[in-house]
Amino acid sequence: MNPQNLRIPGPTPVPPEVMQAMQRPMIPHRGNEFRQIHKNLVQKIQEILRTDSNVFVMPGSGSIGWEAAIVNTLSPGDHVISFVCGDFGARFAGVADAYGLNVRTYKVKPGHAVDELMVRRALAEHPQAKAVLYTHNETSTGITNPLQRVGPIVRDHGALLIVDAVSSAGAVHIDTDLWGVDVLLSGSQKGWMSPPGLAIVSANDRAMAATSQASFPRSFLDFEAWSSSVAKGDTPATAPLTLYFALDAACSLILDEGMAARTERHDEAGRRTRQTFEDAGFKLFADTAYASSTLTAIEVPGGAGAKDLVETVRERYDIDVAAGQADLSDQIIRVGHMGWFEQEDIARAANAVVACATVMAE
Amino acid sequence: MNPQNLRIPGPTPVPPEVMQAMQRPMIPHRGNEFRQIHKNLVQKIQEILRTDSNVFVMPGSGSIGWEAAIVNTLSPGDHVISFVCGDFGARFAGVADAYGLNVRTYKVKPGHAVDELMVRRALAEHPQAKAVLYTHNETSTGITNPLQRVGPIVRDHGALLIVDAVSSAGAVHIDTDLWGVDVLLSGSQKGWMSPPGLAIVSANDRAMAATSQASFPRSFLDFEAWSSSVAKGDTPATAPLTLYFALDAACSLILDEGMAARTERHDEAGRRTRQTFEDAGFKLFADTAYASSTLTAIEVPGGAGAKDLVETVRERYDIDVAAGQADLSDQIIRVGHMGWFEQEDIARAANAVVACATVMAE
Repeated sequence: MNPQNLRIPGPTPVPPEVMQAMQRPMIPHRGNEFRQIHKNLVQKIQEILRTDSNVFVMPGSGSIGWEAAIVNTLSPGDHVISFVCGDFGARFAGVADAYGLNVRTYKVKPGHAVDELMVRRALAEHPQAKAVLYTHNETSTGITNPLQRVGPIVRDHGALLIVDAVSSAGAVHIDTDLWGVDVLLSGSQKGWMSPPGLAIVSANDRAMAATSQASFPRSFLDFEAWSSSVAKGDTPATAPLTLYFALDAACSLILDEGMAARTERHDEAGRRTRQTFEDAGFKLFADTAYASSTLTAIEVPGGAGAKDLVETVRERYDIDVAAGQADLSDQIIRVGHMGWFEQEDIARAANAVVACATVMAE
Repeated sequence: MNPQNLRIPGPTPVPPEVMQAMQRPMIPHRGNEFRQIHKNLVQKIQEILRTDSNVFVMPGSGSIGWEAAIVNTLSPGDHVISFVCGDFGARFAGVADAYGLNVRTYKVKPGHAVDELMVRRALAEHPQAKAVLYTHNETSTGITNPLQRVGPIVRDHGALLIVDAVSSAGAVHIDTDLWGVDVLLSGSQKGWMSPPGLAIVSANDRAMAATSQASFPRSFLDFEAWSSSVAKGDTPATAPLTLYFALDAACSLILDEGMAARTERHDEAGRRTRQTFEDAGFKLFADTAYASSTLTAIEVPGGAGAKDLVETVRERYDIDVAAGQADLSDQIIRVGHMGWFEQEDIARAANAVVACATVMAE
């Protein structure tokens, strides 16, 4: 099996250095060796995310990050604004709803972005909103929303800005503190080049202040427990050592590459992939003004057959790409270009999709 | 570093077959290959735990299992009985308390067991109890409580029996269904010979019926979401693939050894370790009638100095043993004998403790 052929939008291939890190034997999870690894890991993540805030590396996936943000900063009945431009935004709103929040959802057509005009309007219509749930990169459609412009608007209003950066963080530039993000959440298995199993969460002082008021019962996800543990290098419960070793090695690779070069590599992958599909006559699914640098979605010719196409690409080329999600499951194809790749890897995947779609259409 | 020298009560050493399994490249988490692995893993766990119930392999640690059991089967204000014979029982009760349950706690002196008489009395005193929180093996003291006798008593009463089997499951015989356990929770890093990062939870039909009545808001831990996903081989969120590969390999090793032989190996380790310490004149901390087969605790001569002794054993012998927890942190030494070991490994650790304690007492 060639791990380079995994071109779904996560899990993504794991580099050899990270695989090797997972061969490290177990160590005491309450010892100084672990504490030093943990402290270094937190510092690396802070550098990658450009934040001085708390960083919590929690067992779980990106979706546990949604729940952690909600239970720690809000209380039942609180008003929140959620912006939905795809399946992950909808699921994030669904968690808020399951927790009994007063959720005002603003939806845009999948493939379109949630821009600053919409955010301004929503805040004007719901001035009592305590928090805004915002998806940076919508993994189901290939849209990157303009977080850098939306952040300051939300900060001016005073609401907390909770950002799902599951499929952008670690891959492309995010200026967490400068952009006014209060809680950011991501998952280890996408831009971070690590296996799934960790949620990466940052929470600034505003988020921590909200935590002291938030009344949802919580234990495992409690930011205050995490904060006081992390200050000592500890974790509230036994840390998933192997995944910490992996993420630590991956963060070193990320910093070695440098976030500027890394962002440009992802941007170029996006440009090239879109060009490949457009040259072959395919319709890009996402508004090109907001096209994601970590994944590209195209409409399947004829409007259906994405699942068959994914199977065909796998059978003929041993390459995994993804169909759509929810309502779009059979209508679009998604090619991931995030984390560990060279441009040729992505070109091979895009060309395989083109070739199979062309044959299937004949 | 010799992983065999890790003799704390978890994380425990990980066998080479399990380390090797973690070198498997990433695969699509929504594909048939993963579904097959997941289905096989669940079957193996069911066989090991002797249960036909739902099995959920959740990202997290044993303590997420406490929370999962509580939020899925109970509602705010419900009466529960908790039995505390050490730090982990106290923490389990603490989670119930944080969730606003009406917790009636029965405490025994650390080093003693929660026997069937106490359970009978507690149920008679609190007939309205909806659930009983019971620790099978108390990792902080080295007591194994008589679950096989307590289970039928709780079932007769009608309360749900929620069992913390973090440091017993996978290592020693547990007859989950026969003993009347409704929810069992464990962690991958102890008897299961895997890295930390997974909670292993079983939930029977009675627990699932309670779930449909339980009113705590929940998302990531929701048993119904897990149950419907697992039925298809899926997980509600992205599964931590590498840790699943590891646990799957470990379960194969467990079944290859056989639970009867495995239980006897652990029982023998317990007997030998206790003998070693008693022969050297040390006082065993736990009531020998309920001595654990997965870890042994001794009182430090003079009543204090456990932390220094742990450091000395590490420095002189490159062996990690553990001091106590909470109030007992400097008063007892705990030697883990769970998961992957041969008798000589444990003898070496026990002898090192004896030698260092003797030298330090001089």
